[in-house]
Amino acid sequence: MSFRIVGFTVGILLCILGIAQIIPALIDVNVNDGNANAFFSCAVVCMFFGGILMLANQNYRRKVTIREAFVLTNVAWVTLSVFGAFPLMFADTNLHFADAFFESVSGITTTGSTVLVGLDDLSHGVLLWRSIMQWIGGIAVIAFAIVLLPFLRVGGMQLFRTESSDQSEKIVPKSAQIVMALVLIYCFLTLVCAALYALFGMSIFDAINHAMTTVPTGGYSTYDASFGHFESPYLQLTAMFFMILGGLPFVLYAALVFKGRFNFFKDEQFRWIMGMYAGFISILSLWLWLHSEYSLAESAILVGFNVVSVITTTGYATADYALWGPFVVIMFFFLTYLGACAGSTSGGIKTVRIIVVARSVGVYIRQLLYPNGVFVLKYQGAPMKPEVVMNIFVFFGFYVLANAFLTLALALTGLDFITSISGAATALANVGPGLGDTIGPAGNFSSLSDTAKYLLSLGMLLGRLELLTVVVLLTPDFWRG
Amino acid sequence: MSFRIVGFTVGILLCILGIAQIIPALIDVNVNDGNANAFFSCAVVCMFFGGILMLANQNYRRKVTIREAFVLTNVAWVTLSVFGAFPLMFADTNLHFADAFFESVSGITTTGSTVLVGLDDLSHGVLLWRSIMQWIGGIAVIAFAIVLLPFLRVGGMQLFRTESSDQSEKIVPKSAQIVMALVLIYCFLTLVCAALYALFGMSIFDAINHAMTTVPTGGYSTYDASFGHFESPYLQLTAMFFMILGGLPFVLYAALVFKGRFNFFKDEQFRWIMGMYAGFISILSLWLWLHSEYSLAESAILVGFNVVSVITTTGYATADYALWGPFVVIMFFFLTYLGACAGSTSGGIKTVRIIVVARSVGVYIRQLLYPNGVFVLKYQGAPMKPEVVMNIFVFFGFYVLANAFLTLALALTGLDFITSISGAATALANVGPGLGDTIGPAGNFSSLSDTAKYLLSLGMLLGRLELLTVVVLLTPDFWRG
Repeated sequence: MSFRIVGFTVGILLCILGIAQIIPALIDVNVNDGNANAFFSCAVVCMFFGGILMLANQNYRRKVTIREAFVLTNVAWVTLSVFGAFPLMFADTNLHFADAFFESVSGITTTGSTVLVGLDDLSHGVLLWRSIMQWIGGIAVIAFAIVLLPFLRVGGMQLFRTESSDQSEKIVPKSAQIVMALVLIYCFLTLVCAALYALFGMSIFDAINHAMTTVPTGGYSTYDASFGHFESPYLQLTAMFFMILGGLPFVLYAALVFKGRFNFFKDEQFRWIMGMYAGFISILSLWLWLHSEYSLAESAILVGFNVVSVITTTGYATADYALWGPFVVIMFFFLTYLGACAGSTSGGIKTVRIIVVARSVGVYIRQLLYPNGVFVLKYQGAPMKPEVVMNIFVFFGFYVLANAFLTLALALTGLDFITSISGAATALANVGPGLGDTIGPAGNFSSLSDTAKYLLSLGMLLGRLELLTVVVLLTPDFWRG
Repeated sequence: MSFRIVGFTVGILLCILGIAQIIPALIDVNVNDGNANAFFSCAVVCMFFGGILMLANQNYRRKVTIREAFVLTNVAWVTLSVFGAFPLMFADTNLHFADAFFESVSGITTTGSTVLVGLDDLSHGVLLWRSIMQWIGGIAVIAFAIVLLPFLRVGGMQLFRTESSDQSEKIVPKSAQIVMALVLIYCFLTLVCAALYALFGMSIFDAINHAMTTVPTGGYSTYDASFGHFESPYLQLTAMFFMILGGLPFVLYAALVFKGRFNFFKDEQFRWIMGMYAGFISILSLWLWLHSEYSLAESAILVGFNVVSVITTTGYATADYALWGPFVVIMFFFLTYLGACAGSTSGGIKTVRIIVVARSVGVYIRQLLYPNGVFVLKYQGAPMKPEVVMNIFVFFGFYVLANAFLTLALALTGLDFITSISGAATALANVGPGLGDTIGPAGNFSSLSDTAKYLLSLGMLLGRLELLTVVVLLTPDFWRG
C-alpha cells in the first residue's frame, strides 16, 4: 500500500481550504484586525502543509487501490475538519479545541449542529467561514458519493457503478471530469439560490451565507433563530425548493445539463422521495391544523419547511416543533433517519435503500406464500444482484448498531434518554437538531461535555462516510495484506 | 383453502382452555362464590364452543397447506386471548373488555404487562388464572416455534427445518409426538422450579404461580412488587436459573431426555446467549457498583436478575432500574429487543438472528476488502442458504418498521416519547415492563387509554407470532389463490 496518492490529494484539499480561509480574512479585515489575522495565519498554515504534502507526493501512481481509496476518504475528512477548526479557535469566537472541532466537523459533514450561541452578533468572517465549510463539505460528499462509493462498494452503492468505476485505472482521469461538471452545477445552483434569497428580501450577506448552507443541505444559519429569523413565506418556500434540489441525485442535473436528458421522472429515487415529502407533509400539516390555532396554509408551510429540512438532513428550523406534541416529536425522530437521495448532499439512510428494503419485504411475503416461486428484486427496471441487496441490509443492521452504541456512549456522559438517542440519530444522519430541551430545534449543543462533543463528531464523520468506510479501517484484515 | 383443520385445532385448544378454567374455579369456590361461578360459566362456554368446533370439523384433511397453517396460528392466538379474557370480566376483578383482553393477551403471549393494581389482595382464583394463561401460552409458543415456524419459513426459521417439516403430509402425525415430548419436559421443568421455590421459602401457592410464569418466561407475579416481593437471594437465583432455562431452545432438552445427547455446548445459540448474559451482567454490575451504595455482590444479583428477566423477555422486576441513571435505562431499552433463543418461550429478535446479522457484517467487511473473494456464512458449521439470511434481514427491517408504526400510533393516543417508544418495544418483544414513569418497572399499564391497550395487545400478538405470520394475512396475495 502506498500513501502517495492519499498525501497528494489531501494536499490539494488543504490548499483549497487555505485559499477558502482568505475570503473571511478579507471580509473581516475592516471590522476586526484580530479575526483577519487569525484567518490569514490559518490560511498560511493550511497552504503550507498542503503544499508540502503535494510536493512530497507528486510522483503518485495513477492507479488507486481499494485500500488507498478507503484511507484517502477517512484522512481527507478528518484533516479538513481539523484545519477547518483552527480559525474558530483563534478568531474572536475563542473556542477551545473540542468546540471548534465539533463546529468544524458539523460544517464539513454538512450536519449543521452548532455550539455557538449569539450568532446574530458574530463577526461576518466567522459566519462566512461556517457557511464555506458546509459548502465545501457538500461538493466533497457529492464527489465522494458519485466517484468513490460505487468503486468502494460500500452500503450497496455499487448499484450506481458506471463503466469508469469498474476499472480502477480509469478512475483518476475520468473522476476529474466528473467532479468538474458537478462543481459547475453546484456553483450554478448556489448562485441562483442566493439571487432568489436576495430578491425576496435577504441582505446580500445573508443571501450568500444561506445559499451556501441550503444547497449542500447543511443548515448553518447566521441567526440563533435559524431560518425562523426570516418570516417571509417566499424565502421559506425558496429554501424548501433548494433543499429539495440539494437532496436529489446530482447525476440527474449532470444528465440534463451536459447531455440534455431530463431523467427526473424516470428516476425511482426521485419519484419515491417526492412521494415521501407529499405523504409526510400532508399527514403532519393536517395534524397540526387540527391541533393548533394555525390555518391550514400556515400549517402546511410550517410543517413543509421543517419536514423537508429534516428529511434532506439540512437542519434549519422555523419553529420549535418539539412543542407540537409527542406524535410530532416521534414523527420527527423517525424522519431524522430517512435522508434524501443517494448521490446528493444529504445524509441518513437514503431513499434508494428504503426502496430496496420495502421491495424486499414485498418479495419476502410473496415467497412465504409461494415457496417455489422465483421473485426478482428490481431497481430502475433492472434485476438487482443479491449481493447488493445484502449489502444494503447489512448497512441497515450496522446503522442500527452504530446508533445503539453511540446512544449508550452519550448516556455514559450523563445525558438523558431523549438527548442521547436523538443526538446519536441526528449526528449519524447529519441532520443538525436533535430532540429534547437541550439539543432540540430551539436548543444548542454548547452545554454538552467535551466527551459528548467528540462522540457526536465521530458520529457525524461515521454517518457522512456511510459508516463502513470508517469501520473497515479498524479491522485487522485491512492492514494485513 | 379449507378451514376444517383450523376449526378442529382451535376447538381442541378451547376445550383445553375450558378445562384449565375449572382449576381457578375450584380454588375460589371456598373463598368467593361469585368468582367460582364466573370461572365455571366461562369454562362451560369455552368447552361448548370448543366442542362444537371439534364436532363440526372432525373430517379435516390430514394435510395442512401453508395458508391453512397461517390462518390457524392467527385464529388460535386471538381466540385463546378472547376466551381467556372472559373470567377477568366476570370475576371480582370486574374488568371491562379492553382491560381484560389486554391482560389475557399479555398472559397468552407470555408478555407479563399488567393492568391490575393491588395483586396482593386479589382472589387466588384470578391470580392462578393469570399464571395458567402464561403457562399455556408458553407451551403453545414452543410448539409453534418448533413445529410450525420452520414449515412456514417465517423470519428465516426454515433454518430449523427437520425432515418432518419438509413434507406437509407428515406434519400432523409427527407433530403430535413432538408436542407430547415438549409438554413432558415443560411440566417437569415447572415442577422442579415450583419445588425449589417452595424449598427456599415461598408458600405453595406462590411457588406454583411463579413457577408457571418463570418457565414460560412470562413474568406475571402475585404481588404488585413483582419478584421484588421476595428478598431471598436463593429465590432470586432460582428464578434466574429457570428464566435462563426457559430461554434456551427446547430441542436441546428433548435431545437430552429422549436421545441421551447433551448438545448444549455444541449449540451456537446456547454459547452466544450465555456470552451475552455474562457480558451485559458484568458491564452493568460494575457500573451499578461504582455508581451506587450497593456492594459488588448485591449489584451482581440485582443486575443479573433484571438483565436475565429482560433478555429472556420474562419481565419480572426486583428493582426500579429506571432510577439507576440514563446509561442503565438506555441499556435496558436496547436489551428489550434482544430476546433469548429461537425455539424457546422468549420473544424479541432472538439469538440466532443476532448471530446471523453479526456474521453478515463480518463477511461484508471482508468482501469490501477482497471484492473477488467468496465468503460463506455458516450457522452450526453448515453454510446458510442466502435466502435464509435475506429472510432474517427482512425480519429485522420489518421489526424496525413495526416498532416505528406502533410507537407513532401510541403517541397519537397522547402518550409521551419514552412511554410510546418503550411501550412499543416491550409489547413487540413480549417483555413486560416498559420505561418511563407510567409503564416502567415500578409502573403499570392501567392508566393507558383503551385505544393504547388495544394497540399494545396487537403489538404483543404481532411479536409473539414473529410479525410476518400476522402480516401475511393482510396481503391480497394471501386470499387470491
